[in-house]
Amino acid sequence: MSSYGEKIKLTVFGESHGEAIGAVIDGVPAGYKIDMDKVLVQMARRAPGKDKTATPRVEKDFPNVKSGILNGVTTGAPICCVIENTNTKSGDYANLMDKPRPGHSDYTAYVKYDGNNDIRGGGHFSGRLTAPLVFVGAVLRQILEQKGIKIAAHISSIGSVEDKPFDPVDIDDKLIDELSVSPFALIDREKEEPMREVVENARTNLDSVGGTVECAVVGMPAGVGGPLFGGIEGTIAKAIFGIPAVKGIEFGKGFESSTMLGSENNDEFEYNGEKVVTKTNNSGGILGGISSGMPVIFKAAIKPTPSISKEQATINLQTGNNDSLVVKGRHDPCIVPRAVSVVEAVAAIAIFDLL
Amino acid sequence: MSSYGEKIKLTVFGESHGEAIGAVIDGVPAGYKIDMDKVLVQMARRAPGKDKTATPRVEKDFPNVKSGILNGVTTGAPICCVIENTNTKSGDYANLMDKPRPGHSDYTAYVKYDGNNDIRGGGHFSGRLTAPLVFVGAVLRQILEQKGIKIAAHISSIGSVEDKPFDPVDIDDKLIDELSVSPFALIDREKEEPMREVVENARTNLDSVGGTVECAVVGMPAGVGGPLFGGIEGTIAKAIFGIPAVKGIEFGKGFESSTMLGSENNDEFEYNGEKVVTKTNNSGGILGGISSGMPVIFKAAIKPTPSISKEQATINLQTGNNDSLVVKGRHDPCIVPRAVSVVEAVAAIAIFDLL
Amino acid sequence: MSSYGEKIKLTVFGESHGEAIGAVIDGVPAGYKIDMDKVLVQMARRAPGKDKTATPRVEKDFPNVKSGILNGVTTGAPICCVIENTNTKSGDYANLMDKPRPGHSDYTAYVKYDGNNDIRGGGHFSGRLTAPLVFVGAVLRQILEQKGIKIAAHISSIGSVEDKPFDPVDIDDKLIDELSVSPFALIDREKEEPMREVVENARTNLDSVGGTVECAVVGMPAGVGGPLFGGIEGTIAKAIFGIPAVKGIEFGKGFESSTMLGSENNDEFEYNGEKVVTKTNNSGGILGGISSGMPVIFKAAIKPTPSISKEQATINLQTGNNDSLVVKGRHDPCIVPRAVSVVEAVAAIAIFDLL
Amino acid sequence: MSSYGEKIKLTVFGESHGEAIGAVIDGVPAGYKIDMDKVLVQMARRAPGKDKTATPRVEKDFPNVKSGILNGVTTGAPICCVIENTNTKSGDYANLMDKPRPGHSDYTAYVKYDGNNDIRGGGHFSGRLTAPLVFVGAVLRQILEQKGIKIAAHISSIGSVEDKPFDPVDIDDKLIDELSVSPFALIDREKEEPMREVVENARTNLDSVGGTVECAVVGMPAGVGGPLFGGIEGTIAKAIFGIPAVKGIEFGKGFESSTMLGSENNDEFEYNGEKVVTKTNNSGGILGGISSGMPVIFKAAIKPTPSISKEQATINLQTGNNDSLVVKGRHDPCIVPRAVSVVEAVAAIAIFDLL
Repeated sequence: MSSYGEKIKLTVFGESHGEAIGAVIDGVPAGYKIDMDKVLVQMARRAPGKDKTATPRVEKDFPNVKSGILNGVTTGAPICCVIENTNTKSGDYANLMDKPRPGHSDYTAYVKYDGNNDIRGGGHFSGRLTAPLVFVGAVLRQILEQKGIKIAAHISSIGSVEDKPFDPVDIDDKLIDELSVSPFALIDREKEEPMREVVENARTNLDSVGGTVECAVVGMPAGVGGPLFGGIEGTIAKAIFGIPAVKGIEFGKGFESSTMLGSENNDEFEYNGEKVVTKTNNSGGILGGISSGMPVIFKAAIKPTPSISKEQATINLQTGNNDSLVVKGRHDPCIVPRAVSVVEAVAAIAIFDLL
Repeated sequence: MSSYGEKIKLTVFGESHGEAIGAVIDGVPAGYKIDMDKVLVQMARRAPGKDKTATPRVEKDFPNVKSGILNGVTTGAPICCVIENTNTKSGDYANLMDKPRPGHSDYTAYVKYDGNNDIRGGGHFSGRLTAPLVFVGAVLRQILEQKGIKIAAHISSIGSVEDKPFDPVDIDDKLIDELSVSPFALIDREKEEPMREVVENARTNLDSVGGTVECAVVGMPAGVGGPLFGGIEGTIAKAIFGIPAVKGIEFGKGFESSTMLGSENNDEFEYNGEKVVTKTNNSGGILGGISSGMPVIFKAAIKPTPSISKEQATINLQTGNNDSLVVKGRHDPCIVPRAVSVVEAVAAIAIFDLL
Repeated sequence: MSSYGEKIKLTVFGESHGEAIGAVIDGVPAGYKIDMDKVLVQMARRAPGKDKTATPRVEKDFPNVKSGILNGVTTGAPICCVIENTNTKSGDYANLMDKPRPGHSDYTAYVKYDGNNDIRGGGHFSGRLTAPLVFVGAVLRQILEQKGIKIAAHISSIGSVEDKPFDPVDIDDKLIDELSVSPFALIDREKEEPMREVVENARTNLDSVGGTVECAVVGMPAGVGGPLFGGIEGTIAKAIFGIPAVKGIEFGKGFESSTMLGSENNDEFEYNGEKVVTKTNNSGGILGGISSGMPVIFKAAIKPTPSISKEQATINLQTGNNDSLVVKGRHDPCIVPRAVSVVEAVAAIAIFDLL
Repeated sequence: MSSYGEKIKLTVFGESHGEAIGAVIDGVPAGYKIDMDKVLVQMARRAPGKDKTATPRVEKDFPNVKSGILNGVTTGAPICCVIENTNTKSGDYANLMDKPRPGHSDYTAYVKYDGNNDIRGGGHFSGRLTAPLVFVGAVLRQILEQKGIKIAAHISSIGSVEDKPFDPVDIDDKLIDELSVSPFALIDREKEEPMREVVENARTNLDSVGGTVECAVVGMPAGVGGPLFGGIEGTIAKAIFGIPAVKGIEFGKGFESSTMLGSENNDEFEYNGEKVVTKTNNSGGILGGISSGMPVIFKAAIKPTPSISKEQATINLQTGNNDSLVVKGRHDPCIVPRAVSVVEAVAAIAIFDLL
């Protein structure tokens, strides 16, 4: 299912080289002002072709709002956004029909859909499907902001180069505002150069490289979420794993907390004069599945993009023999910088569904 | 929401010191033979009090099947299981009403439910609520086994002591069978002693310690799952984060893949004479959200149990002042060994919902 | 699926002659006071054996609340209610295993569950499963009342004897209060005698008789519901058809409106000095799927109970031949009086899910 | 919510005078051939402007398939259909902003959306939103036909003129085929003239008139559906009430069965030499919520369209006073003939969701 949500109903549709991609979201309340320029800023952050970390394709990716927003205000009816596919070169993908790309969905989709899925450009599995996600997130985060909730993410690492993490108990509002519009979002800007080098190395080696994205939700009121399957972690995780290439997620100290003692990991409570806070925030702002009022912080692991131009062993579904493959076409050596806006957008979708 | 599932509808109910806990599951097809002895084996693996890693409480935890199974066969109607609470000492929790325990849900639940939630023994947030999950999983995995799918997990680490991981391309059926009934499940049994030492150290220091659980699903046919929000990762993640104390999850190489090159991470396909396999299985058996036919492998991070007997700073909701707390009562210094059966059970629930 | 709800998650479980029946409901907010005496009043209205219109069985039907209510107040955790089956005589049903009763679910359930369903006493299809529905409704309507919404129904007809309908624009609060606790709910009490005669005639002829129940929801604020599949009509209808034996539902003038002109059927608006009302209420308080603030009124058609003691033609699943059947056991000649409380309860469930 | 479905996820979007209307449906399996000409036949049946029973507007209503169908075959990805709005005259609706039309959603939507909904042409509540429903139904019924299930409906009545009903135990395949493409679907063609007279009378009197649509699903295998809230009746009813103007639904004998004796209403089983059938089909092919293998038959009541050109009393939301209104614009005096294809389409959606 390409659908998500309990309180909202979101469906993402389209194939990479089909007529269009887009999304429909039902359950957005009426009366919220949506600034389309802010939406386009987010779309631009995700769009490829800006620098050497990204694919040289030029996508237009203009989101045509077909319904649900009238004179810049939500009407309460479902919002549908359609992004026409204009710049598609399907010839590049011809040999993939027979030879599934390692690390990609070609083989598993072939089995699931019995060969009927649209394989051109990755079809419905293409990273291009994150464009409508960014659109939806860009709309919903404007509504969240009107409720005092802001979301920002940054490139936490590319390869083994790491950015400085968020200070989990004290995230500056200015930092949030800067990161959430940055095309190469970093807390420590000194890391841009070494990260770009890692990507450039991969590119020149016809290879690709992965990374991590850390995301913070600030202004989250305490008391949101729920026990067991209603928890914030599960709700965000289900959404974030909807982004192609995500292979892991952790909240707060996450995997590191598994090596800690309870006395180290527990976040002690205190009144800070104004409200209840925790002295540390190893829990990532979530206790018992419910928000504590501290920043909600999580990190997602993104695998290296599987489409590389090195020769790889694979099978030939036509001949039934082992074979080899060189993937042609235009591909990102590293999708992590572009993934930042997608992670923010999907976090916005999940948080919105929780509220 | 304490409910889960698209094709099945599962609701877990009960409070730790209330009258009973249990689960109802709708959508289990008719005609499957269920061996209750196998169910009790799983319940026993999770039950506390067996050794020093666990709480000295003696729970009876007998699952009374109220409906849905007749003469050992599923009827197709919802299965309800009730576990009466018999051995509860609520006095121990009196001071928690006012002073929320660091790392626990006391404060966040207080905010969410405006003080009306049952706080005794953790109430609906208690780890005890995993007992009905194990029951449900123990039923569903018997059905999965009849379809050729087996699930096993092991203690991947406690503190910094690590077990050997699964061989992701070749998991022995005998290993699966052994692990899936083991009360202290390890691939490398040499690690039991050092792990128990870590736990004993924590216990004598009035502290607790976390760990990780690695889980494998073997016999999974290729083609299960789907793109975007219908992926296996998101479906399993949503379920696994329903287990209290889980703070992270990764599939295949997970976070490690974020530091890898595409050429290292991609799993090359080959015909092995019999069927399509991948030479490596860094993807954890999942490509594009869909199973590849290789073992589905994931790892969950479990934080140290927050209930420790060391003095900790907290707030007093009654006085509105900062305060301190020593948690009394019977608590596990390490829940990871018991969590193994819970992770397996919840994996079974998620896989069942996908099929 | 025996489950219902978008915002709430309700599952009804149990088989008529199994160990127990009951219900679990997730999504009930914390902090609402529940008067168990009022719940028992509703359970008693539905319980059989009070007079000649009902089956002579004596059910205890005591609802054991296992979770979710503490000291008479909802905790916010799922509410589970278990009703033990104590008075079951399964011998009476032995011959039904082979010979499906006309008008009953025996044959269709046999096909669906491949013979594995519990057929004793109707199993999961028994009218007895309405007892947990009444429990859940009795809890939820107390919460609705605290929001100013009251629900009452009456026997609109039995056979061809009709009660007076609700005045759709002016329903007296006292009438609502009286009907909603009445064991034989009528607006015009003169109709009790002729209705009982119809039932008694059916009973002495080893036959049964159907009827209709009209239900009103008053105090419903304007603006609840939604367009298309989010409408009040569809939400209530899905719930009401969950009651065994319901074969039709209409809102406001319903089928009669299909014979009317627009000028007759349209409800003109007016300010009555205090608020917006409609001069008539042919729409049953619903326009475009959304409440108008007028009473929500619907009528459900209930077929005659299929378990009659007359000889009927049927098939023999064992022999594969045509056969005949005389249904033994204790059966209601008319379930309509008892159905009144069920319709009210299920209306409460649907309205609660909409709010 | 404008969304529907358990196994499928359908969302209908758009506003009557907005940029476009359409639908997205997730969960349609891959590999089914879809004949777009057959889809257009259904769209044409619903389209207005063909004769005097309908509005003189000329809608183009061409369904642009944006995704999910490639080379005439379903890909397994969500199907999105967009119908651009080209022929809209919004000026006609200016005075409705202040004066809600009796019988229409203007007032209730105004309350729900706090005045932010798109009121032009009825906005998201317009009957025009049934065009995407017909598209979706036209796709799904082609898949159903490949499984041997056919659906047809007819004008059961307009005003007090009634068509002959389906013979519930013997529905000719040729009749099904004829009705399901007919623009004025009748079993007894003699009734066309008197029905058109009723409509023409309403039209010349600036009035409108309602009617009923009877629908049959043939080829339905026995054993589909389920108990309680999983029943066929509730699933179909929820969908059918999603059609604007539907105010009632009944299955089989429906309301008439409420006046019958059990011995009259029960459908006796027999082997007819080939399979199990019932001698009568008063149940409408559904017992215990599950299909019996007999035709599934239901009837929907459609109120007279509320947009009439007679002067009606209403309120003025601007002035806060009582007022009067003459609705201008182009409106159907009777939507029943066009509703036939919509009922069929929505029945197809519901049946598809059940399978």
